[in-house]
Formats: sequence, structure tokens, C-alpha cells
Amino acid sequence: MDKIEVLGLVAACLTTAAFVPQVYKTWKVKSAKEISLTMYTVFFIGVILWLVYGLLIDSLPVVLANGITGMLIVLMLLMKMRYK
Amino acid sequence: MDKIEVLGLVAACLTTAAFVPQVYKTWKVKSAKEISLTMYTVFFIGVILWLVYGLLIDSLPVVLANGITGMLIVLMLLMKMRYK
Repeated sequence: MDKIEVLGLVAACLTTAAFVPQVYKTWKVKSAKEISLTMYTVFFIGVILWLVYGLLIDSLPVVLANGITGMLIVLMLLMKMRYK
Repeated sequence: MDKIEVLGLVAACLTTAAFVPQVYKTWKVKSAKEISLTMYTVFFIGVILWLVYGLLIDSLPVVLANGITGMLIVLMLLMKMRYK
């Protein structure tokens, strides 16, 4: 794996892991009034398309990163609907 | 441009555009208590790495998408610091 590929993987890890503290914060405060439902809905559709793209170009990092991000976004959407 | 490339571009547009409604919502409610500073900080670092990655692999879509996302994330960080 060359250095550029490693850089891309680190970037993917960060933009995926970033959602963990937001999921934790929302779960902790049990409120999601300030969270945009539109943002997470559009982001979710985008992530699903990234996932299909990753499968089509046979890119495990793209599939993995977006698979995990997708699950975190689903948690945010569920909490947004539950906590309002 | 083949269909797979178009799919990737649509995915990039969606995951970038997704932040617009969150920026708008936070600006409108003038409160960011429920917004995770850690999420946006980690996401920002990830986006900067994606930008460098895009420059290194000469990918205009990656550079453009992450350049615009980076600016939207900066707006979120500024509002998070201002509105608390």
C-alpha cells in the first residue's frame, strides 16, 4: 500500500469515526431538536450511493467506511425521531 | 464519464450538500448545545486529509467535494464556538 492510499484510509477512518461522538452526545442528552433531520436523511442517501459505488469499483475501504458511517447515521435518525 | 463515475459524483454531491440544512438550522436556532464539537473537529481533520488525497491523486471531484464540505464544517465550528 503506498503513502497516498494510507492517507486516504486515514481520512476515511476520521470522517467515519467523527459520527461516534455525535451519536454518544445525542444519546446522552436525549434531545435532538438542534439536529437537522434533512442533513442526516440526505447524508444517509449519499452514504448508500457511496456504498454501491464502492461495491462496483471493488473498493473495500469505501465499502467499509460507508457501511459503518451508514449504521451511525441510522442511529442518529432513530434518535432524531425518538427524541424529537 | 461512465455510469459508475456519475454515481460517485452524485454520492459526493449528497454527502457535501447534506451539511447545508444543518448549517442553516444551527444559524436559525442560534444554539449548538446538542452539536458535538468533537464530531465536527474530527470530521474537519478528515476532510482536510481527503482534500490532500484528492490533490495527490488529481481528482477534481474529491478536491471540490471536500473543499466545499470543509467550508461548511468551518461554519459549524464557528457557530458551535459562538452559540455554545
